[in-house]
Amino acid sequence: MGLFTKDIKNMDDLFIHQLKDIYYAEKRIVGTLPKMIDKATSSELKQGFEKHLNQTKNHVKRVEQVFELHGVAADTVTCPAIDGIIREADEVASDVDNKNVLDAALIAAAQAVEHYEITRYGTLIAWAKELGAEDCADLLDQNLEEEKEADEKLTRLAESSINRAVA
Amino acid sequence: MGLFTKDIKNMDDLFIHQLKDIYYAEKRIVGTLPKMIDKATSSELKQGFEKHLNQTKNHVKRVEQVFELHGVAADTVTCPAIDGIIREADEVASDVDNKNVLDAALIAAAQAVEHYEITRYGTLIAWAKELGAEDCADLLDQNLEEEKEADEKLTRLAESSINRAVA
Repeated sequence: MGLFTKDIKNMDDLFIHQLKDIYYAEKRIVGTLPKMIDKATSSELKQGFEKHLNQTKNHVKRVEQVFELHGVAADTVTCPAIDGIIREADEVASDVDNKNVLDAALIAAAQAVEHYEITRYGTLIAWAKELGAEDCADLLDQNLEEEKEADEKLTRLAESSINRAVA
Repeated sequence: MGLFTKDIKNMDDLFIHQLKDIYYAEKRIVGTLPKMIDKATSSELKQGFEKHLNQTKNHVKRVEQVFELHGVAADTVTCPAIDGIIREADEVASDVDNKNVLDAALIAAAQAVEHYEITRYGTLIAWAKELGAEDCADLLDQNLEEEKEADEKLTRLAESSINRAVA
């Protein structure tokens, strides 16, 4: 987007801008999850991240379908929010000196990522519906539901990891 | 936190680190909301942000109480996540050329902030309980409930702003 021009003129422009933002975010998450799988120490957490990596690759494809349905070329805009969330995750993880505590920190970081996606998909779905793009809303809703499930699963995994870390 | 030393040795260290992170985030939000109040065009949204600014000032105080109860001095760590979320909000808002679309963009940005806080408070409460710090958990839960209410209110405001923007 231009630095001196105001490129977002209407809700459709805003929707496309936000779609490019989540497309960038999903792709960054695909690049980041393998590192989190490597760092995770409990096999349950590793498996959870592996499953979510496969889901995330599918989310990228669904976002590409939304671009196509909406008649615009798939493209990204840099998303400082997800960059910041991932940078914070890296910094905290590299500062932890105990494997159970590390798992707790990784789960918290992953939940921050999930919540970012949950809020963005919630917004995108509301905008798509208002724009009459029900087909786009349906696809985006499939991603949203999987992000919510992933967040709930992480909450359950958090309990066992914290129990081990405090024990 | 040190660059070459691993400063987080146990769950208590991780809890305090995350508390410093949300303390930084809440303070940044106190600094950012007045700009969002200025930019917002609907009086309902302006009032919503003003109310949340007062709540946020109170959240800062509650986090300070948690530090005190936990026996550590209130302090911040830079939180790249909230910095990124706020930078993204600024960038999008400066790129919008329509007041109703701007309100929709501001609401989406504010909801990204709320969701970041919701995930962090959720994590902090779980950790506080595991550490036996029920008094800290209670205070953090009061902040969490107000963030959730703010998010729900923004969802309702979003509907009317999008209706105006699409009309």
